[in-house]
Amino acid sequence: MKKIAVVGASGYSGEELVRLLLSHPEVEIAAVTSRQNAGRALAEVFPRFAHHPKAKSLQFTEPHADYLARGAEIVFLALPHGIAAEFARPLVERGCKVIDLSADFRLRNPAVYLEFYGHEHPAPELLRKAVYGLPEIYREEIKGAALIASPGCYPTSILLPVIPLLKSTLVKSTGIIADSLSGVSGAGRKAELDYLFVECNESVRPYGVPKHRHLSEIEQELSLAASAPVTIQFTPHLIPVNRGILTTLYLAPEKHFADTASMRELGERISDCYQTAYGNEPFVRLLDEKSLPATKNVVGTNMIEIAWRLDPRTGRLVVMSAEDNLVKGASGQAVQSMNILCGFPETAGLL
Amino acid sequence: MKKIAVVGASGYSGEELVRLLLSHPEVEIAAVTSRQNAGRALAEVFPRFAHHPKAKSLQFTEPHADYLARGAEIVFLALPHGIAAEFARPLVERGCKVIDLSADFRLRNPAVYLEFYGHEHPAPELLRKAVYGLPEIYREEIKGAALIASPGCYPTSILLPVIPLLKSTLVKSTGIIADSLSGVSGAGRKAELDYLFVECNESVRPYGVPKHRHLSEIEQELSLAASAPVTIQFTPHLIPVNRGILTTLYLAPEKHFADTASMRELGERISDCYQTAYGNEPFVRLLDEKSLPATKNVVGTNMIEIAWRLDPRTGRLVVMSAEDNLVKGASGQAVQSMNILCGFPETAGLL
Amino acid sequence: MKKIAVVGASGYSGEELVRLLLSHPEVEIAAVTSRQNAGRALAEVFPRFAHHPKAKSLQFTEPHADYLARGAEIVFLALPHGIAAEFARPLVERGCKVIDLSADFRLRNPAVYLEFYGHEHPAPELLRKAVYGLPEIYREEIKGAALIASPGCYPTSILLPVIPLLKSTLVKSTGIIADSLSGVSGAGRKAELDYLFVECNESVRPYGVPKHRHLSEIEQELSLAASAPVTIQFTPHLIPVNRGILTTLYLAPEKHFADTASMRELGERISDCYQTAYGNEPFVRLLDEKSLPATKNVVGTNMIEIAWRLDPRTGRLVVMSAEDNLVKGASGQAVQSMNILCGFPETAGLL
Amino acid sequence: MKKIAVVGASGYSGEELVRLLLSHPEVEIAAVTSRQNAGRALAEVFPRFAHHPKAKSLQFTEPHADYLARGAEIVFLALPHGIAAEFARPLVERGCKVIDLSADFRLRNPAVYLEFYGHEHPAPELLRKAVYGLPEIYREEIKGAALIASPGCYPTSILLPVIPLLKSTLVKSTGIIADSLSGVSGAGRKAELDYLFVECNESVRPYGVPKHRHLSEIEQELSLAASAPVTIQFTPHLIPVNRGILTTLYLAPEKHFADTASMRELGERISDCYQTAYGNEPFVRLLDEKSLPATKNVVGTNMIEIAWRLDPRTGRLVVMSAEDNLVKGASGQAVQSMNILCGFPETAGLL
Repeated sequence: MKKIAVVGASGYSGEELVRLLLSHPEVEIAAVTSRQNAGRALAEVFPRFAHHPKAKSLQFTEPHADYLARGAEIVFLALPHGIAAEFARPLVERGCKVIDLSADFRLRNPAVYLEFYGHEHPAPELLRKAVYGLPEIYREEIKGAALIASPGCYPTSILLPVIPLLKSTLVKSTGIIADSLSGVSGAGRKAELDYLFVECNESVRPYGVPKHRHLSEIEQELSLAASAPVTIQFTPHLIPVNRGILTTLYLAPEKHFADTASMRELGERISDCYQTAYGNEPFVRLLDEKSLPATKNVVGTNMIEIAWRLDPRTGRLVVMSAEDNLVKGASGQAVQSMNILCGFPETAGLL
Repeated sequence: MKKIAVVGASGYSGEELVRLLLSHPEVEIAAVTSRQNAGRALAEVFPRFAHHPKAKSLQFTEPHADYLARGAEIVFLALPHGIAAEFARPLVERGCKVIDLSADFRLRNPAVYLEFYGHEHPAPELLRKAVYGLPEIYREEIKGAALIASPGCYPTSILLPVIPLLKSTLVKSTGIIADSLSGVSGAGRKAELDYLFVECNESVRPYGVPKHRHLSEIEQELSLAASAPVTIQFTPHLIPVNRGILTTLYLAPEKHFADTASMRELGERISDCYQTAYGNEPFVRLLDEKSLPATKNVVGTNMIEIAWRLDPRTGRLVVMSAEDNLVKGASGQAVQSMNILCGFPETAGLL
Repeated sequence: MKKIAVVGASGYSGEELVRLLLSHPEVEIAAVTSRQNAGRALAEVFPRFAHHPKAKSLQFTEPHADYLARGAEIVFLALPHGIAAEFARPLVERGCKVIDLSADFRLRNPAVYLEFYGHEHPAPELLRKAVYGLPEIYREEIKGAALIASPGCYPTSILLPVIPLLKSTLVKSTGIIADSLSGVSGAGRKAELDYLFVECNESVRPYGVPKHRHLSEIEQELSLAASAPVTIQFTPHLIPVNRGILTTLYLAPEKHFADTASMRELGERISDCYQTAYGNEPFVRLLDEKSLPATKNVVGTNMIEIAWRLDPRTGRLVVMSAEDNLVKGASGQAVQSMNILCGFPETAGLL
Repeated sequence: MKKIAVVGASGYSGEELVRLLLSHPEVEIAAVTSRQNAGRALAEVFPRFAHHPKAKSLQFTEPHADYLARGAEIVFLALPHGIAAEFARPLVERGCKVIDLSADFRLRNPAVYLEFYGHEHPAPELLRKAVYGLPEIYREEIKGAALIASPGCYPTSILLPVIPLLKSTLVKSTGIIADSLSGVSGAGRKAELDYLFVECNESVRPYGVPKHRHLSEIEQELSLAASAPVTIQFTPHLIPVNRGILTTLYLAPEKHFADTASMRELGERISDCYQTAYGNEPFVRLLDEKSLPATKNVVGTNMIEIAWRLDPRTGRLVVMSAEDNLVKGASGQAVQSMNILCGFPETAGLL
C-alpha cells in the first residue's frame, strides 16, 4: 500500500479526495491536514466517513512539510491558489510526488499567472517541472512527473470536448464560446453571504463575466492543441445544485456543410475524431445522436459525458459536456493521475 | 399616510417588512436602517425592489433614535435579541410606537428571559408595557399598545392551533408535543458554514433538542390559555426550502373517544371550537377533512393553514399547521398588528 | 370593472393569470375554465387563493365559447398550441378580445407554423388579425388589437435585449447565440416522468438541441428588427428551480473596439441605445456595470433585468437577461397587454 | 460468483439495487427485468451505469419465472405490493432464494394485510416461510431463509432505534410517537402530478395521517419486541430532497428521572442498551451527546445514525434517526440480507 497525504482536507475537494482514497485498493491515507480542524478526528468533522474502517484512526493534523514528507510518498494539495505553491516547494525538494488541485502550477508562463491571479507566482522555478494533469491528453507526461497540476473544473469540461476537434482541425480555433453551469460546491466551503442556502436556492446567475480566471489555463491548452493562439469566450453561471458542471460549446467547423451529404460526411469525421480520441477512455462517455448529457448521470462518478449536434441552420457545431465538478473536475481526476503516476490500474478506486 | 421606519432592514425579516410596507396603501417608509449598508440605496442592496416607485428614493441610514423618532410614528425593529431592547427604550420614551420582531419583549418574566437567552434583560421596565402581538388572540390589547412584541415564527405555528383547544378544555394541558420543520431563512442572513447552500441542500436535521429558546414564549402563552403551567416538547428541524414552517402537534383530548359516536361528537366540538375561534379570521384557513396543509399554499402570504385528525387507534388528536415563517411568522404578522394599532383595515397590504 | 375569463386556468400559466387578475384593481374574473376540474371550486384546486375575497365564489367550468362570450369582454387562453386556435375563433367572431398565451398566433406565416409545430395551422385566417404582444415593442399595435399573441417565455428573454441593438445596427444580425436556462414550470403541469422531482432535482441538462420551436417566433421578430433574415443559435437548458429564465446572449458589434477609447465609445452607444429603448419602461431594469442579473431578483414580478459587457479579448458583446418565465415570460406580460388594450395604467395589478 | 436477478429494476429501489450489485465483489447480475423497458440496454435507460464494465452487456428482459429460476440463485423483487407476491410463488417453488422489497411478506397475519392494503393476500401460504429482513434483529433467521421480506423505509428508521429500548424495558410500550420526513424517491418513479418537481420543490407537507400502511409492520415488530400489543402514532411528511429519511421519536421512559442523578443513571442505561445492541453493528452509527443526525451524513450509504436526548423538563426520551430511504431503507438492507444469507462478509459491496 502506497502512503499518501491530503493537505487541506476540510474543503469540498479535500473531502472528496478523502472519500475516494479511503476506498482505493492500493493506497493508505497516512495524513489528513487542516489548520482549523487540527486535533479533531476525521470522523467527527465528516460523519459520513465514520463507518469506514480506514477512517477510524485518522485525525486532522497541522500541515508540516517535514512530517508529511516522512510519512507519505504522494501528497495531494487541496489548498487555495497562492498557498499551494508555498506548500509544494519543500515537498518536491524532499522527493515527494505532489498532486496539486489548485491553479498554482497549471500555467506555463508566470506572466499569465500574474495577469489572471493578481500576484507574482510564488514558485516560478517549479513551473517547468509541472505536468498538466489531464490524463486523456497528457497520460505519458504524467507517468514520470514529480509535480502534477490537476486541471480546474471548468477547464476539464471544456478541454476534453474541444482539444480533439482542434487537433484534427475539424473546427476553427477562433470564435469558440463556452457557456458553463456549475453547482455551488465549486465556490468552495467558505462562510460568505453569497453562498448561503437562501441566496443560491431558487435562483441562477452568471458571474465573472467576461474574464474568469480559468480562461488562462483553458486558452493555454487550446492554443497548444491548435498550434496557434486561441482566445475564447467563457461565461460561468451558478445554479442551485450541490455538484455538477454542464458546459455548452459553440464551435465553427472548418468545412461548410450546406447539404445533407456534406453534413453527414462532416458528422462522420467528428464521430471518428471523438472515437479515436476517447473510444477506449474509461472515463469519457460519448453519447449517441439520441442522447444529451445530464449532470445526474455523472454526479458522484469520474465520468464526463460528451454529445454534439451539427446545426444546418447556423452552420455551427454545438458540443455539450457534463461532469461532477468535484470528481472528474477535481479530486477524481487527481486520483486518476495518481493511478497513472504509480502504475496502478487507471480506474482503481474510481469505478 | 402614516410614516414608518424599519430598523435592521437588511436581514430576511427586515427585507420582508420592506416588501410588505412598500405596497401598503396607508403607510410611507420614512427610513430604513442597516449598519453595514448605511449610505447605499435600498434598490442596490435589494434589486427586487428597484422597480417599485416608492423604493427609488430610499437609502439605508445609521439607526439613530433621534432621527427615527423625528421622522416616523411607528418603528419596526428587526434586530437580534438583546440589541432590540436597547433600541426600543429611547424610541418608546420619545413617543414612537414600536413593533419589535425580536424576542426581547415577548416574555413577561425577566427571569425566564435570563434562563433562555443567557443574559439579563436589557430593559426590564418596558416588559409591562409590551403586548404579545398575536392578533387573533390579543387584538384588543394591540389596539392601544405602545410596544408590541411580535411573536416568533415557531410559536405562531404552535400557539394558533393549540390556544383555542386549551381555552375550551378540549385537550389536556400536559403531554403536548410540537414537531416543527422550518426553511433556512429562519436562521437569518448570517455568513456561517452551517447555512451554506451545500450544507443545507439535500439534507434535513433536527437542532436545538430538547430546549429551544422559543419554548419560553410558547409555554408562557399556553399556560395563560390553560390557566395552568404548561410544559411542552418541541423539536425544530431544518429543511431545504427558503421559506415555510410546517408544525405537527400531538395532543391528548380530555374525553376518550372509544366508539364512532363519541369520536364524531368530539370531532364536532373541535370543529366548533376552531370555527368559533377563527371562522372569521382573515388569515387563518381551517382545512376540511380531505385536506392537509402544505407550505406551498401559504408561502408569500400572511395565512396560516390548520388541519386536524382524531386517531381512534391511539386516542390522540393530531393538529398540523403551515405558515410562511417570514410573513405570518414574522413580518406579515407585525404588519397585521400595525394595521390594528393604527385602525387600518386589518388586511391592508396583506392580501 | 371589466369582466374577464381565463380558459385553461389549471396549468401553471393559467394559475399565475388567476393570481394576478384576482388582485387587479380594474377587472373582475367572470369565469375560469378547466376540463379536468370543471365543477370544483377554485379555492379547492388552488388552496393558495382560498383566502382571497374575490376567489371565494369562483368555480371551474367547462370552456364553452357561448358562455364565455356572454360573460366576459376579454378572454385569456392558457391552452396548449393547436387547441388554443380552435378556441379563439368563435370568441373573436363573437367580439371578445382574446389574449392567447399559446404559440398559435405568434407566427405571421402559416408555413413556418407547419415547419416548427408539425401540423397545419388551425385558423390561418386569424393570423393577420393577431398582434405580437410584446408591449415594449408593439405598444401601439396592442391598443387596438382584437387578438393578442402573447410571446413565449424564452423569446421574451431574448427579444427584449436584442431588438434595440439590431434596430440601431449596433450589432450584426448574423452569428447571434442565445443560451438559456429555465425553471421546470416552463414544461407545464404535465404528469410525465421527465419532470418528476427526483428526475429534475440536483441535475441540469440541455434539451431541444439544435432546433427548439421558439426559434420560429424569435427569428421572425429579430428579422423584423434587423430588416433582414436572421437565423440564430438557441440552446435551452432545464435547471432545478420552479421559476425563472436566465439568458446569455453572444453578439458581434458592427464596429471593432480595439483600444480603450473605441471600447468606451461603443459602450456609450450601447448604453444610450438601451436607455432610449427602455429608460422609461416600467418593467425593464437596466443594470449598471457592477451588477449582473439573477433570477431571484425578478421571480414573482413582471420585471426583466438586462446587463451587458463588452469583451475586449474576443471583440464580442455579451448580454444577459433574467425574468420570471410565468410572469414577464407569460401571464404578467399578458396582463400588461390587457392593461394597454383597455386603457388601464400599464402597471395596474403588476407592481 | 453467485448469480442474481433484479425484477422490477427500473424503479428507484430497483435502480439502487443494480448500482449496489454491479460493484458487489461476490455476485454477478444475471438478469434485470422491466416490462416497460424490456429489450433496451441497461446503460441506455440508466446512463449513470454505462461506464461500468459489468453493465455493458446487461439488457432489460420480461420477468418470466422460468427464465429467472434457470439463471439466478437469488432473485430480488422490487415490485409494487400485490404484484410481488405473485412473482414470488413460482420462484420459491423452483428453489430460488427470494428477497422481496415490497410489503407483501412483511406481515405475519394476512388479516392485517387485508386491513392495511385493502385486498386479500395473494399468497398467504408463503407468509410462514418469510423472514423479516432486518439484519440487526433477525440475523440468525435470515441465514437460512427461503424468502426474505425486506423492511419498509419508514419502519427501518423507527424499528432500529426503538426495539432495543423496548426489549430492555427502558421505555413504555404505550404512547410512542414517530414523526418522519422522507425524500421524494420514497414515492417511487410514478408519473403523477403530486410528485412533479414544481409541486414538491420549496414545500413540505404531511400525508397519510393518521393511518399509513407502514404502521402494520411497525406495530407487528414493536409488539414482538415488547411482548405486548403496541400501537403507535406515526406521521410521515414529504420534504424536497431526493433521498433520506429523518425520524424523530417521542418515548416515555419506564423510570422517572426527577433529579440530575436519576437522569444520569437513566442516560447510562440507555447508552449501555444501545451499545450492547449496536456497538458492533457495521451499519449503525450511535452518535455522541454533542451530535444530532443529518441525512447528508448517510445518503448514498447503508448507515443509520441514531442519537437520543433525555428531556428533564418533560420526562421524555427523544430519539432521532437518519438513513437513506433507498439504501438502508430498501436496497442496501436487502443486499445486507443477501450477504448474510450467502455467507458473504456482511459489509460486502456496502462500504
